[in-house]
Amino acid sequence: MNILVSNDDGIQAAGVRCLAAALAQIGGHQVTVVCPDRERSATGHALTLHKPLRLEPVREGFPPEVQAWACSGTPSDCVKLGLDGLLQHRPDWVISGINQGANLGTDVLYSGTVSAAMEGLLEGIPSLAVSLASFTHQDFQPAAQVVLTLLEKLSLKPLEKPMLLNVNVPPLGLAEIRGMVLARLAWRKYTDLYEKRVDPRGKAYYWLAGEVVEEEVDPCSDVRAVAEGYVSITPLQPDLTAYAAFDSLQQWGLSAFGSGLEGAL
Amino acid sequence: MNILVSNDDGIQAAGVRCLAAALAQIGGHQVTVVCPDRERSATGHALTLHKPLRLEPVREGFPPEVQAWACSGTPSDCVKLGLDGLLQHRPDWVISGINQGANLGTDVLYSGTVSAAMEGLLEGIPSLAVSLASFTHQDFQPAAQVVLTLLEKLSLKPLEKPMLLNVNVPPLGLAEIRGMVLARLAWRKYTDLYEKRVDPRGKAYYWLAGEVVEEEVDPCSDVRAVAEGYVSITPLQPDLTAYAAFDSLQQWGLSAFGSGLEGAL
Repeated sequence: MNILVSNDDGIQAAGVRCLAAALAQIGGHQVTVVCPDRERSATGHALTLHKPLRLEPVREGFPPEVQAWACSGTPSDCVKLGLDGLLQHRPDWVISGINQGANLGTDVLYSGTVSAAMEGLLEGIPSLAVSLASFTHQDFQPAAQVVLTLLEKLSLKPLEKPMLLNVNVPPLGLAEIRGMVLARLAWRKYTDLYEKRVDPRGKAYYWLAGEVVEEEVDPCSDVRAVAEGYVSITPLQPDLTAYAAFDSLQQWGLSAFGSGLEGAL
Repeated sequence: MNILVSNDDGIQAAGVRCLAAALAQIGGHQVTVVCPDRERSATGHALTLHKPLRLEPVREGFPPEVQAWACSGTPSDCVKLGLDGLLQHRPDWVISGINQGANLGTDVLYSGTVSAAMEGLLEGIPSLAVSLASFTHQDFQPAAQVVLTLLEKLSLKPLEKPMLLNVNVPPLGLAEIRGMVLARLAWRKYTDLYEKRVDPRGKAYYWLAGEVVEEEVDPCSDVRAVAEGYVSITPLQPDLTAYAAFDSLQQWGLSAFGSGLEGAL
């Protein structure tokens, strides 16, 4: 298999190095890594349009059979450039991660990790976004093992069509993880508090300091699954259309385009 | 009404100035503008976590009754900071735009304009993302008039619950616009070509140069509606869960969390 790996924590991050090493160990995989040259968390789907991108080969920290590159762009840039500018053949998988920190619920909108994997799906390539649900827990081995297990199962029994699976692994040893489950994204709310401070020159500045509010967590959600010790797996798609609102907007007075009633409003 | 305005083209952009002036003209609205201090197109939902944010008041180019601020962050930062750090009262609307250039189909994933409006919806505030579907057409007046018309209709007959409406206005005079229609997001594909070039120092660089592929455009989509001279209106939501894939993943072997069958895989 031909695998393109990226992340948003940057090429120096322990998570992507652990993932690349695990994928290379299995053998038979051609692993290419293209990661941002520095941390690019919370960059969402940002793309670099107005500046050129650079690619630098990176040897240190990766097995010799892995081709690794540091890219001056965002996670989305890395995958786009990897697919178009670097790889001779379309990869079988795009895998983004292993991220240090969860990517759960509506937070995936902000996630560079998920955005990198979404670039794969937008090109019709099956993709995984993999996150270790802790900012401090340093052992990425169980999450890497989850990826290998998933890839093995998926190669034995492929999915009907390309999907992006968002995978969050609880910060536990392999033996303590209770299994993999299908879960939907939670709606995450934050207190969104900005701290207003004054700099040494007497000028005000603001720093985002919000905390997640975990009240009333949806019992079928990814947030809850990970909190209970499961690996949560959520299929994601790129269409933000709120189809559920169509009826209500038609009653309100808008005609659906293509219905023959266009322009009533 | 209390309206928070943002954009991704930056505080200097003609589109946001035209919008702010139109909103202020109506009277009775308290309009606060918080925009990036420079162009921030294609930044997606990027958030600034690791740096402080600055706010500077801007007078020039806005009517005296409009409070306008330039923010050092992304469009999402602008709305978050506007809501939490600046406004004393929760606004009735968050309006993002008027963007120079369309935000149609799956492209909305990359759109700073849409992301700013999504921040409003995530806080439960009705929001509009408004784009003029041309990179060159400079007359924002018809699009501003569309916003005023929509706001008037929505205040006379409010929607059942807060929504984010993504509004794309064709680059036509008001009399030529054929009406407003409800349309779903198209799946936009690009050729995604990176041009590889060599800099004056002999080093390679890459520049994104892809063009949109408009073959087989969904006849009920926003792309088609705008191409035919309609204002397209698409309700958007923040949940990327691919619910349609749940059945197929359960058949594949994953148990749904909350079903009592957890951990079968």
